[in-house]
Amino acid sequence: MQEDQKTSGNEDRESRALININQMKAECFPQSERIYISMADGVRVPFRQINLRAPNKPVVVYDTSGVYGDPSAELNLHQGAPEIRSGWLARCDLESWEESYPEDHFIKKQSRKVYRASSGAKITQLASARAGIVTPEMEFAALRESQNLEKNGESAITGEFVRQEVAAGRAIIPANINHPELEPMVIGSRFLVKVNSNIGNSSMCSSVAEEIEKMVWSIRWGADTVMDLSTGRRISETRESIIRNSPVPIGTVPMYQALEKVNGIAENLSWDVFRDVLLEQARQGVDYFTIHAGLLKSLIPLAAKRLTGIVSRGGSIIAKWCMAHGEENFLYTHFREICEICAAYDVALSLGDGLRPGSVYDANDEAQFGELKVLGELTAVAWEYDVQVMIEGPGHVPVDQIEINMKKELEDCHEAPFYTLGPVVTDIAPGYDHFTSAIGAAMIGWYGCSMLCYVTPKEHLGLPNKNDVQQGMVAYKVAAHAADLAKHHPLAAVRDNAMSLARAEFRWEDQFALSIDPYTSRRLFLEDSKLGECGHDFNFCSMCGPKFCSIRVSREIKEMVEKEKGQ
Amino acid sequence: MQEDQKTSGNEDRESRALININQMKAECFPQSERIYISMADGVRVPFRQINLRAPNKPVVVYDTSGVYGDPSAELNLHQGAPEIRSGWLARCDLESWEESYPEDHFIKKQSRKVYRASSGAKITQLASARAGIVTPEMEFAALRESQNLEKNGESAITGEFVRQEVAAGRAIIPANINHPELEPMVIGSRFLVKVNSNIGNSSMCSSVAEEIEKMVWSIRWGADTVMDLSTGRRISETRESIIRNSPVPIGTVPMYQALEKVNGIAENLSWDVFRDVLLEQARQGVDYFTIHAGLLKSLIPLAAKRLTGIVSRGGSIIAKWCMAHGEENFLYTHFREICEICAAYDVALSLGDGLRPGSVYDANDEAQFGELKVLGELTAVAWEYDVQVMIEGPGHVPVDQIEINMKKELEDCHEAPFYTLGPVVTDIAPGYDHFTSAIGAAMIGWYGCSMLCYVTPKEHLGLPNKNDVQQGMVAYKVAAHAADLAKHHPLAAVRDNAMSLARAEFRWEDQFALSIDPYTSRRLFLEDSKLGECGHDFNFCSMCGPKFCSIRVSREIKEMVEKEKGQ
Repeated sequence: MQEDQKTSGNEDRESRALININQMKAECFPQSERIYISMADGVRVPFRQINLRAPNKPVVVYDTSGVYGDPSAELNLHQGAPEIRSGWLARCDLESWEESYPEDHFIKKQSRKVYRASSGAKITQLASARAGIVTPEMEFAALRESQNLEKNGESAITGEFVRQEVAAGRAIIPANINHPELEPMVIGSRFLVKVNSNIGNSSMCSSVAEEIEKMVWSIRWGADTVMDLSTGRRISETRESIIRNSPVPIGTVPMYQALEKVNGIAENLSWDVFRDVLLEQARQGVDYFTIHAGLLKSLIPLAAKRLTGIVSRGGSIIAKWCMAHGEENFLYTHFREICEICAAYDVALSLGDGLRPGSVYDANDEAQFGELKVLGELTAVAWEYDVQVMIEGPGHVPVDQIEINMKKELEDCHEAPFYTLGPVVTDIAPGYDHFTSAIGAAMIGWYGCSMLCYVTPKEHLGLPNKNDVQQGMVAYKVAAHAADLAKHHPLAAVRDNAMSLARAEFRWEDQFALSIDPYTSRRLFLEDSKLGECGHDFNFCSMCGPKFCSIRVSREIKEMVEKEKGQ
Repeated sequence: MQEDQKTSGNEDRESRALININQMKAECFPQSERIYISMADGVRVPFRQINLRAPNKPVVVYDTSGVYGDPSAELNLHQGAPEIRSGWLARCDLESWEESYPEDHFIKKQSRKVYRASSGAKITQLASARAGIVTPEMEFAALRESQNLEKNGESAITGEFVRQEVAAGRAIIPANINHPELEPMVIGSRFLVKVNSNIGNSSMCSSVAEEIEKMVWSIRWGADTVMDLSTGRRISETRESIIRNSPVPIGTVPMYQALEKVNGIAENLSWDVFRDVLLEQARQGVDYFTIHAGLLKSLIPLAAKRLTGIVSRGGSIIAKWCMAHGEENFLYTHFREICEICAAYDVALSLGDGLRPGSVYDANDEAQFGELKVLGELTAVAWEYDVQVMIEGPGHVPVDQIEINMKKELEDCHEAPFYTLGPVVTDIAPGYDHFTSAIGAAMIGWYGCSMLCYVTPKEHLGLPNKNDVQQGMVAYKVAAHAADLAKHHPLAAVRDNAMSLARAEFRWEDQFALSIDPYTSRRLFLEDSKLGECGHDFNFCSMCGPKFCSIRVSREIKEMVEKEKGQ
């Protein structure tokens, strides 16, 4: 009876989610339109063009929203997103087979072709980069980074530049050959700082469509990759459905599914169980795996001394296994087999920091830096297999101790891209940890971190809802953009300067349109109802009123200075 | 008719404001109580004690909320706050006279005694510090900074230490002799990073009680000083009423009142008008003046070239005056007379950066740094008069260009305390500028900035409401605290560590109580209604659920490690 209610409740939520997704697709950001630049082979790279009041030129921005950001596109979540990469597999030496979907699956196809590298074939982006091949994925990623301005010969970001960075291990393109729906992107310190959003159901029920909605909502707000951290029911079906509909790389922590398979009893985990999970997920098209292979048994006592112990879920599971069996971490002992699987499907490795600090007190301790050294060793091993690697980082770190994290990572891990969670710079603001962590994120992004894992206001308190996800994404887009500006990314300042000019010229609607969150900037502006009626043409705002408006006075001064010069 | 409606509307709003203030006083933060430590003369220094579940020791925190944070205190806004400093004036050589209140004044006293230094007498905190005198204000401020832990001999912050810092010009104690209601505090790079909140009515009407409410609301959330930036009607009465009720230093930009006096026509300003405003405000008890004396005529053409020109209100007014008259800034030419006034009442100078950048594009330009050099010259002049000085700073600055601002300020301005507005690190997030600027604020606080002027979500969009003020304050308390941790302030980590231990022990209510915003952390936790019912004793949270709870597993690991050691 209760089960029935749940199911019908789920159906309601499922159809609501589908409606929401279609609505998001229909409603582009204000003054915005989807534009494309075509690659040589006809594949189109998407951008968002923000149109400003004439005679101001439009501003073109990076667009992660895929098909959901194109109001003219057709959508069928049960069939999946357009397979833009399907023509690109020809370059690889692959074998393939059909896998069929059960009838009650969210994806309503008969079957899907699954690919794997032929025996001995080297098919990863890293292998190609090392062989001097600029793959279509590299071209696509380069074009996205250079935001249409390559036309004028201004951009330094070419496919060849991306290739060099990938070949050096300083950048990765997470792009499983079984994820043809992907719009490729590059993660590396010489590119735009990227942001990851986490989604996933928990043991509480949540429908497949709702998880897709979370993914679409995340990329609408600028998520460059999405991690599916589901631990609940229908875990495989949910993941499959997300990947089939996702234009951004999907990452997972395979340990979560492995633990589900042994009914949550960490002691019952084994390499065999784990390997099967890896294979299933690699075949589904997961683009990167978080693997806590660096958490050696010898490091556990160091973590046990801490104020907050082990706060990584994956880390705590593997540590418990090690302690129970008195054996070395099986992810470490079987690491070469993990690399073989990743190499066969081009799954990138995100080497997890199972011992990341969970409090500023524990920051930068022996346990954390001990594990980082092991991650460096594993990076070298993965590279033997042409497997792409990034390194996960903290966590909770006070402001003065952030830079050393970046330095050590570059040193110990041979300049592999760093991918950090924040860091959170103080423990005393739960409810605002999107914020305490965006401070650390902006700083470490500037120091050279390639991707920032977002944190929502619910961190340390509960599961994020839609509003929390949006707040977390905005905080992290601010952090990433602040870092891009600080690193002098050639195109980062274009939008800021357009905003500043719109400010100086009282073009309010243009200011909203150029905002990271146009809805909120507009709403706050209109809260002052007396002014809201005046539309966008009045030459002051309620902050200072007409008499004290520095911008208006500043214009008058400019005229006076010019007049004086003229005399 | 319309006027009548306004007035009666005002009365409603006034009584609502009075009710709100009383309510705030009655409702202390959860698990918190007001405690005091008595000075030798019996004056009591306030703290907030956060009580935790036994056997955990309470955490004592700095408390800016004055009488409004003491539920047992009597409140009468029409009489003003307790005059805790009145016994301390005896040390100064003063003359005094009575000034009476008009009958319809918000303050319902007959009159008030106004003090001024006797001719030739040196009465400022800087004069005393230089003379080797540890004033009661220094003792009070030192006790606040050391948060009760001096008892254990742990604190390095003594009255003598404060004196040394004040004498060196590295710290100031804004404490007008006509502000006996003040609970003194110290602003300097070797002390806790302070936060200023801005309040003030605009040309739109706002009642006196509402402005007091904003002040009380600000200090409840931790504002260390409050600037009254009113530009509207009843400007003098509003200021007087705020000061009489304020336990924190009140700062102003006297230019705003001066401009009101000449009906908003900058060209009609004169030194005489300005001097009268300074005298009136000094006699009311304003603790620090923002004076844009460094904006020289020769710098104006540099600012006219900018993308966003002059964005400081005071700066734009004085620039317009200079241009209209073809004369040097009268605040510069009359600076010694300004110092004489400040010296007579002990008003600290906050030398304004009229040329602060209004966009990341304009950051660190010739105009900005040119003015900073002039502020350094003026600092040396003010010190001749024993006038305390701090220096105002930007503004909009990208992350990589923040540190040089701090370095140049220390160098050019002889280590006088720096007081910055943010800085905002990107222009593209209106609606979130409390946030874009808290990133810069945390960084510059770490680099050595002494006070951070908060920014609310409404910055660039409109006038902040109560919620905006609270959001701005929380963002800035996070930034200031992050900086305190980074600077290794001896007591900063106590609260973080208590929070982390509460986390590791699943003491949820203690976590809320230790939060900067206990209400929000609790609300977000309870949003997950299924768990909310369980109260504070369950050993997991909805983020991971019971099976995946790393904290729970981490405890088990700790036990296992200890057991192994025991064998």
